Amino acid sequence: MALLHYPVLNKRGEVVASAVTNLDIHDIARAARTYNVKRYYIVTPLEDQGRLTRRIVSYWTEGAGAAYNPQRADALSLVTVQTDLDAVREDIRRSGGKDPLLVVTSARCREDAVGFAFVRQLLTENSLLLVFGTAWGLDESVLAGADFILDAVQEKSDYNHLSVRSAVSIILDRLIRSDIL
Amino acid sequence: MALLHYPVLNKRGEVVASAVTNLDIHDIARAARTYNVKRYYIVTPLEDQGRLTRRIVSYWTEGAGAAYNPQRADALSLVTVQTDLDAVREDIRRSGGKDPLLVVTSARCREDAVGFAFVRQLLTENSLLLVFGTAWGLDESVLAGADFILDAVQEKSDYNHLSVRSAVSIILDRLIRSDIL
Repeated sequence: MALLHYPVLNKRGEVVASAVTNLDIHDIARAARTYNVKRYYIVTPLEDQGRLTRRIVSYWTEGAGAAYNPQRADALSLVTVQTDLDAVREDIRRSGGKDPLLVVTSARCREDAVGFAFVRQLLTENSLLLVFGTAWGLDESVLAGADFILDAVQEKSDYNHLSVRSAVSIILDRLIRSDIL
Repeated sequence: MALLHYPVLNKRGEVVASAVTNLDIHDIARAARTYNVKRYYIVTPLEDQGRLTRRIVSYWTEGAGAAYNPQRADALSLVTVQTDLDAVREDIRRSGGKDPLLVVTSARCREDAVGFAFVRQLLTENSLLLVFGTAWGLDESVLAGADFILDAVQEKSDYNHLSVRSAVSIILDRLIRSDIL
């Protein structure tokens, strides 16, 4: 899976690069590890943000944090920082993975979205790269380049403002739970 | 639902009062609002922690935050700070709610736990108070006082260290999703 910090939208619908949030690294890595996700890519084109993220991750995987909390090291060792989705695909190829189908998530309901059951089915025979956006969501250009757009989590609620940490957790549970439960 | 900061366990299994985490207020309020939870109780006996929590909540529900992000005000208006579970029950009674069944959550697998389908069924005819713990989980005394203990989320995974924010999101989705989707 990948968490994109560019190109995403701000409150006014403009394309921006968002800052990496510390708990996005931790919470999402722990959820990824729970559901046996192979790799958690944190995607940012900003060099200082990439450097900061790598520093946080290495504190918990190699530094004092690894001794203090080995479970956290286990989860954060899934994290890899990349500059964009092409670099993610290249990293998957380099590490011997199959070329994945690109499945992007959106908090907005869309006519062209596919359901959770469909993507769960895809998972049985394909390698998937599940893409999440930060800030006010992924720019349309990311959705246009996807193989599939996944249904919004909160389709029938009158409130669609889950944190990305909550959305990731719920989506992994809906897509992968049947395999581990 | 209620998020308890006392009595919870620390890393060494000792009973402690944990500090309130800012993103526990925000992420869990947003998830609660999405799934139409009636009230989100943040439970701490520590006066300064209660005061700090009320100050954060009022910033987002009445202060500059409410103007900046009305959706956040909508979610955080579900938050009420109480000192312990008795005070929570009293608040529910005072606000005209039915006396709830106490359903506590645990990340550990237990013989005496009930399944998600069972609790979903309970919800159709009862008022429930769903209790979550911070730090290394709820003290046994809270579990002993419960009507039911809910199965662990990650029952079949080899990793059971989800953040409480992730666990709450997944549990609300499993228990309530069918009602709104």
